[in-house]
Amino acid sequence: MQLEFLGTGSGVPGKFRNVSATALKLLDECNSVWLFDCGEGTQQQILRSNLKPRKINKIFITHLHGDHIFGLPGLLSSRSFQGGNTPVTIYGPKGVRDFVEISLGVSQTKLSYKINYEEFDEPGVLLNNKQFEVYADSLDHQIESFGYRVVEKDHQGELLVDKLKAAKIPSGPVYGKLKNGETVTLDDGRTIDGNDFIGESQKGRIITIIGDTRSNPNSYKLAENADVLVHESTFGKGESRLAHNYYHSTNMQAAKLAKKANVDKLLLTHISARYTGKMAIELQKQAQSIFNNTRVVKDFDVIDVPFEKNN
Amino acid sequence: MQLEFLGTGSGVPGKFRNVSATALKLLDECNSVWLFDCGEGTQQQILRSNLKPRKINKIFITHLHGDHIFGLPGLLSSRSFQGGNTPVTIYGPKGVRDFVEISLGVSQTKLSYKINYEEFDEPGVLLNNKQFEVYADSLDHQIESFGYRVVEKDHQGELLVDKLKAAKIPSGPVYGKLKNGETVTLDDGRTIDGNDFIGESQKGRIITIIGDTRSNPNSYKLAENADVLVHESTFGKGESRLAHNYYHSTNMQAAKLAKKANVDKLLLTHISARYTGKMAIELQKQAQSIFNNTRVVKDFDVIDVPFEKNN
Repeated sequence: MQLEFLGTGSGVPGKFRNVSATALKLLDECNSVWLFDCGEGTQQQILRSNLKPRKINKIFITHLHGDHIFGLPGLLSSRSFQGGNTPVTIYGPKGVRDFVEISLGVSQTKLSYKINYEEFDEPGVLLNNKQFEVYADSLDHQIESFGYRVVEKDHQGELLVDKLKAAKIPSGPVYGKLKNGETVTLDDGRTIDGNDFIGESQKGRIITIIGDTRSNPNSYKLAENADVLVHESTFGKGESRLAHNYYHSTNMQAAKLAKKANVDKLLLTHISARYTGKMAIELQKQAQSIFNNTRVVKDFDVIDVPFEKNN
Repeated sequence: MQLEFLGTGSGVPGKFRNVSATALKLLDECNSVWLFDCGEGTQQQILRSNLKPRKINKIFITHLHGDHIFGLPGLLSSRSFQGGNTPVTIYGPKGVRDFVEISLGVSQTKLSYKINYEEFDEPGVLLNNKQFEVYADSLDHQIESFGYRVVEKDHQGELLVDKLKAAKIPSGPVYGKLKNGETVTLDDGRTIDGNDFIGESQKGRIITIIGDTRSNPNSYKLAENADVLVHESTFGKGESRLAHNYYHSTNMQAAKLAKKANVDKLLLTHISARYTGKMAIELQKQAQSIFNNTRVVKDFDVIDVPFEKNN
């Protein structure tokens, strides 16, 4: 599991930061990539990464501002052109379907795959399968904006086959029972508890992605105990009034949230073009004074999301 | 007058060629820039050029395929964000208005200027003012596609004030009459023909921009005697059947047209990603065997369009 940042700027593209797009790479988990927002030029950024458009099978849109959606028609078209033939599901506020369908319609674009639309206008669970649950909650922006919480289900411990062999427990259907944690009696009379032969389970990871927003209480619910919190940081220290007026957040507000919500790592994105080079580092340092494990991400940064070590 | 190529690739963006956009820079002529097509990422290409979005006041769309229009909403939004406040006119096939208005509507984008739409579905003169006439004619593509012919009006010769002064003709309202080519009688009895005191006129320049198309007769009408012919070249020598099947042209077809239409210079664009590096030079060499003054353009190439020398 990795996060790859394809666009870390705010509002309009700059020379060094494209508009919003974040890829959650789940190649080991389910051989797919989920995309969060898709500003104009996302497909060009993907060209410069090692992502494959055909692996993208879910796209989550935080809100409908142009810097978060204008790359959708082009990415979807190119995915088809480049041989993508598996369905894509687009999750987002009402309106995203109109935008995509009219863009593809006017341009007479025929896709080689189906798009499923999951439009929504209130908080809730969007997806719940064996591996992941994704929950969306409302934020506080000029237009309806959502944050996403991606919760990976815990990984069951694996059957310790070497240990079973060392204990001279013969292989066969009994291994399945032991793997399920059952207690079985062997032909030789021994009673064996499966739990003694199952490795440690791994706690699933939690990724929280907060779209454009003012500081607000729902962000806490979304971020609580996350392994990684991706948060917008359009403004810097001392600019909370400006941030409020423009419906955005400061780096310090994001850091306070990270601390309060007990997250492991804070990644700041949606950085204004006013903060170039060293000034972006300054944003990071300011936030670190509140929450040490903070990083201001750049376009093409790839961040590993490891399992917790003490499990 | 210059042409600046912002996207010279075909279909989908590549690492070295973005999708279609060509700027006609008329800074000396009317302090403005006209854009022909606007594929996704055009605003990002403009960032890497010295063009100013606020100078773009006319956008001509050849056809509605995504690689020619998906950059419109973002460019128009950023032009507003960056202080553009003068109107923009968009010329193009029916449908372009829906695409732009729905994109801006869904994203709740408020522009600081007005967009005038000039949608059309048949050939005709789109614009005729003191300086320029622009004419569109139908091409032969999968969907309705147009070529544009931009005809600069001839520049009148200037009044040769130094020559008038040397002839001791006193300044005053008489200068205006002489500038109009009138014959006047001076107070000292001399009769003066204005034409003797007017410099040489300069023939206006002609730029022809051919959108995606099969080889077709209308292209000749559009290109006749042009100073510069910008032509798509999706396919290479020996691929005319492929070109026909995909509703495109080869470099050789473009070169034959350039020769037949007696143009000064042929610029080949809309180059497939199959032709990288040296292979693009090969496309150029092949075309030069028919029409010598041919160039395969690259993204960010700037081509001067001088007045004819022998005028």
